[in-house]
Amino acid sequence: MIYKRKVNFYETDAQGIVHHSNYPRYFEEARGYYLEKIGHPYEKIREKFNIDIVLVELSIQYKRPLFFGDTFEIEFDIVQMDRFTFTFKYTVKNKNKIIALGETRHVCLNRKSRNVVSIPDILKIKYKKDVQT
Amino acid sequence: MIYKRKVNFYETDAQGIVHHSNYPRYFEEARGYYLEKIGHPYEKIREKFNIDIVLVELSIQYKRPLFFGDTFEIEFDIVQMDRFTFTFKYTVKNKNKIIALGETRHVCLNRKSRNVVSIPDILKIKYKKDVQT
Amino acid sequence: MIYKRKVNFYETDAQGIVHHSNYPRYFEEARGYYLEKIGHPYEKIREKFNIDIVLVELSIQYKRPLFFGDTFEIEFDIVQMDRFTFTFKYTVKNKNKIIALGETRHVCLNRKSRNVVSIPDILKIKYKKDVQT
Amino acid sequence: MIYKRKVNFYETDAQGIVHHSNYPRYFEEARGYYLEKIGHPYEKIREKFNIDIVLVELSIQYKRPLFFGDTFEIEFDIVQMDRFTFTFKYTVKNKNKIIALGETRHVCLNRKSRNVVSIPDILKIKYKKDVQT
Repeated sequence: MIYKRKVNFYETDAQGIVHHSNYPRYFEEARGYYLEKIGHPYEKIREKFNIDIVLVELSIQYKRPLFFGDTFEIEFDIVQMDRFTFTFKYTVKNKNKIIALGETRHVCLNRKSRNVVSIPDILKIKYKKDVQT
Repeated sequence: MIYKRKVNFYETDAQGIVHHSNYPRYFEEARGYYLEKIGHPYEKIREKFNIDIVLVELSIQYKRPLFFGDTFEIEFDIVQMDRFTFTFKYTVKNKNKIIALGETRHVCLNRKSRNVVSIPDILKIKYKKDVQT
Repeated sequence: MIYKRKVNFYETDAQGIVHHSNYPRYFEEARGYYLEKIGHPYEKIREKFNIDIVLVELSIQYKRPLFFGDTFEIEFDIVQMDRFTFTFKYTVKNKNKIIALGETRHVCLNRKSRNVVSIPDILKIKYKKDVQT
Repeated sequence: MIYKRKVNFYETDAQGIVHHSNYPRYFEEARGYYLEKIGHPYEKIREKFNIDIVLVELSIQYKRPLFFGDTFEIEFDIVQMDRFTFTFKYTVKNKNKIIALGETRHVCLNRKSRNVVSIPDILKIKYKKDVQT
């Protein structure tokens, strides 16, 4: 899937580039876009299954900077899923140049107990379909 | 009261100065510091009275920029309080130069109903004592 | 002009609503959108005229909260302009309910000297045309 | 080295916990604290050597959440340094419980050319001394 986005001025820092702490936020936006595109926006999933999706691992390799005014693309997808965890991979690109590579791993928690619960079937079904094609 | 703070690099923007959206955050830190100093940290107040303190009005005049590496002071105090609202005023200074002037007005909400409730007495008592001295 | 936007999860706080410090950022996005729509994106203006547009005054009245999943609209326009300053007014709406009212005043600085310079004609021309119609 | 910090309310999200994108910012604060403690604050290094220290790799494992009101500690140090790169490792703790583990790798860039330059000797000397003891 591809998520496109323009850099906001408030995301830059005194080096004149996008501050590295914004990339996890861009990835979160991409995941939100993903859930929306497959017809299950995160805000609906949260309510329906009474879960929070939390991030348990994050890694990013920064290759080139993003500047104010840049429009970048995030190519991303789910690359792993089992009963309790799933992993997204991201490639941030600007005009076909690789800006950054990222990976995030997630689990679902019950919103009251904060205990890990199994991933809702609607996410698993989508993932299986993707892998089979 | 005075709250002292160093500028973080991630708070700067591509103009090389602290981005204006950080000042409301600095003011929030100052208010947290205030509640702590008077012996009623916000996290305790939230639980004890089941309230959220919300901001209903904000105004800031930006006089001079803050740069990375600057240590600034916020001189601030409660300047108004009635049954339902209270107002903080802030003067941000760096080496005796005025950086910014700010004002925030607040109400307390019941955390469940989100209805406005009267300000806890512990805040009112502190305010009255200050005004009388 | 109208700028439309979805709330990002990372913009919410532990009250479950959009943190107030994001509104100045939303306004900045709206201004960026404005400059783009009139054919003079901020990144181009910055380079061409060697200026930074800085914010000197900000005021916001918060009427209702925004929640994660909300899509809001900002109705906004330039309401004042003289040789050195200009003012934007904003109305943040969610499904026709007013969320917040805002106002920001700006000046242009030479990027090297950080001195105030007069507003580029391209902005003035646009403003005059708007006022006359 | 240990860097201590209180959670700010604006760092929490609608899950009621510190949003994951703040951890890279906490690590940056810790690095700033480190440079200050060894007598070479980042703002001085930037000017003196005309360099920016940029982050090229980031990884974080999130073990437990941080809540508003928590005071956490970051135990951290430089664990690798060669001519061009150095690596910090971080353990975020709250009351002796591990909250998160992190690692960041950095290079120095010439601020004009944005080319990689060798790490200033003052950082190398400090590192060698640490390793030898």
